[in-house]
Amino acid sequence: MSIVTIIGAGMMGSAMSGPAAENGHAVRLVGTPLDREIIESVQKNGFHPTLRTVLPEVVTAYRIEDLDRALDGAELVICGVSSFGIDWFSEAVLPKLHSGVPVLSITKGLVDGGDGSLTAFPHLLASRLPEKLRGTIPFQAVGGPCICFELLARRHTTVCFCGDNRSVLEKVRAFLATSYYHIQISTDVMAVEGCAALKNAYAMGVSLAVGLADREIGPLNPADAAALCAPGAPDRNPVYNPQAALFAQSCLEMRRIVELLGGDGGRAGELPGAGDLYVTIFGGRTRRLGTLLGRGIPFSEARKMLNGVTLEAVAIITRVARALRTRGEDPKNYPLLFHMDAILNRGAQVELPWDRFGC
Amino acid sequence: MSIVTIIGAGMMGSAMSGPAAENGHAVRLVGTPLDREIIESVQKNGFHPTLRTVLPEVVTAYRIEDLDRALDGAELVICGVSSFGIDWFSEAVLPKLHSGVPVLSITKGLVDGGDGSLTAFPHLLASRLPEKLRGTIPFQAVGGPCICFELLARRHTTVCFCGDNRSVLEKVRAFLATSYYHIQISTDVMAVEGCAALKNAYAMGVSLAVGLADREIGPLNPADAAALCAPGAPDRNPVYNPQAALFAQSCLEMRRIVELLGGDGGRAGELPGAGDLYVTIFGGRTRRLGTLLGRGIPFSEARKMLNGVTLEAVAIITRVARALRTRGEDPKNYPLLFHMDAILNRGAQVELPWDRFGC
Repeated sequence: MSIVTIIGAGMMGSAMSGPAAENGHAVRLVGTPLDREIIESVQKNGFHPTLRTVLPEVVTAYRIEDLDRALDGAELVICGVSSFGIDWFSEAVLPKLHSGVPVLSITKGLVDGGDGSLTAFPHLLASRLPEKLRGTIPFQAVGGPCICFELLARRHTTVCFCGDNRSVLEKVRAFLATSYYHIQISTDVMAVEGCAALKNAYAMGVSLAVGLADREIGPLNPADAAALCAPGAPDRNPVYNPQAALFAQSCLEMRRIVELLGGDGGRAGELPGAGDLYVTIFGGRTRRLGTLLGRGIPFSEARKMLNGVTLEAVAIITRVARALRTRGEDPKNYPLLFHMDAILNRGAQVELPWDRFGC
Repeated sequence: MSIVTIIGAGMMGSAMSGPAAENGHAVRLVGTPLDREIIESVQKNGFHPTLRTVLPEVVTAYRIEDLDRALDGAELVICGVSSFGIDWFSEAVLPKLHSGVPVLSITKGLVDGGDGSLTAFPHLLASRLPEKLRGTIPFQAVGGPCICFELLARRHTTVCFCGDNRSVLEKVRAFLATSYYHIQISTDVMAVEGCAALKNAYAMGVSLAVGLADREIGPLNPADAAALCAPGAPDRNPVYNPQAALFAQSCLEMRRIVELLGGDGGRAGELPGAGDLYVTIFGGRTRRLGTLLGRGIPFSEARKMLNGVTLEAVAIITRVARALRTRGEDPKNYPLLFHMDAILNRGAQVELPWDRFGC
């Protein structure tokens, strides 16, 4: 039995306690300053309020003030914050990490450096380590399709852990692999993490077609808006050819972006790209956003309807479009991405550039 | 205005009358010996009984006995038979074709030659031309995601026409492209047609996960079985991580098979592969078959429940697995395909080899 410390008690971070517990580890779940209610609840009776379930018994919840204690003796640290928490993690957590203890990040995103560069989180975190720890902590990250509820429910789930060092990846995999949590590994961090970030952007793109079809059903009343795109809900207007065309265009653009960043573009058509895109289209906030936009609702209004939930898709579309522009890339190679950027950031109407798709 | 002659009055063949009519062509729809009822109905009042719609006014229906007349003056011939009709087409139609008139085939499949070879239909048809026509007729084929009902309903649809000659492809595209029917072109026939065939196999594979989840809902009564997987119907047990893992594994195996056959494996992650797989998973007989098998129903019984509809998935899985074995390919590289083959052809239980997936 080892100790696994998860920092960030959001849904995905907390769900990682499932496979860790299954492997017999003691799990320490540390809340960020935004997670206080969650931590109080887990401390009280183990119940995680947003996952709406009781976490495994071996989970002990810690407040952020107890971070040092939570890290003491841990053999694996999981960074469970969203991309919006990565600066906080860098400042509050990185300096406290222990030399030699690997970190696995579930954070998905790419950071643009203003100069057209796009950096994956494992590399960003490594570069932000304080001097004394520089080079002593291997950072890994998770890509691939994984709905957190399903992971906790022990559904068969296949993901890809990436990092620079294969033997560390194998060690981290051994900590977490179970009979239902299947872990592939890859040293192509840019391909896996590029896809992990981009799939959020493109899930919004595919969902535009859901909204365009839904618009034909008639005006949207508030009750419909809330029910729109609940996981497993029937499509109000099932139309799939346009979604499929957008899905394919998404894979093509992901491939080009990953290649541009030096990764193996082929992965865009496999687990980290197409696989993760598939699952992301089936539910959650990104699909809801895309569907609302596809219905013709401006982003400013759609954002309000989504009650200010964090929208990774918006961040990644904006950042990647900006980076591609800075690099002088030809927008013709990324027509869907630039159209999404125009919808979100310049109030453009949804008008898909069908005839600019393809190679 | 030109004349487009479609041979085979099934759903997809007949739906091609939509874009042809939109381009101002006269359309001649010729029934095979199996299409007599359809042709009689279209001759009577334009109504296509299986598409459940009235075809465009410019469509004239012909019985097979009038094939010569239907081909006279045609500038494009569309081969609209299913893979099970390709031998009939070769014998009854090929000898009657006119030199120089291009053929576009919507038939999806690969033919195994018994020696491990797998041939795409455009190449098969070209090789079967009678001596006097040999080399005088360019064969093209259609890949990519296209549900026939949606095409007829003028939904945005993006497909890929493939053939050996780019200028012929451009000519054929000009015959059929509309504001909603978007046509990409490719001279990589093996990649496009390989994916077009294989996506039927793998749509059954992904659907196994739908059935495995559905099994948990309880026993299947006959009414449920009929409703199972109707397009747009809600999932009775929405679980997506396993589907996504199978989707990704499908793309990976399609890539390997296409590469083995000399095509660009990257297309397996784009429109002809991932895009077409996406749409095929959303409905139709292949999804129903996979779902029934995933529920634990043996193939012999599932086939009866599907009332003997033609099952392209069964043919392609069987043929490709056989060809790979003959070639001495390592089954470890195609674990999903060989598992599907075992389910269909050796009565194996559904037991997905999760840990053999990936590269």
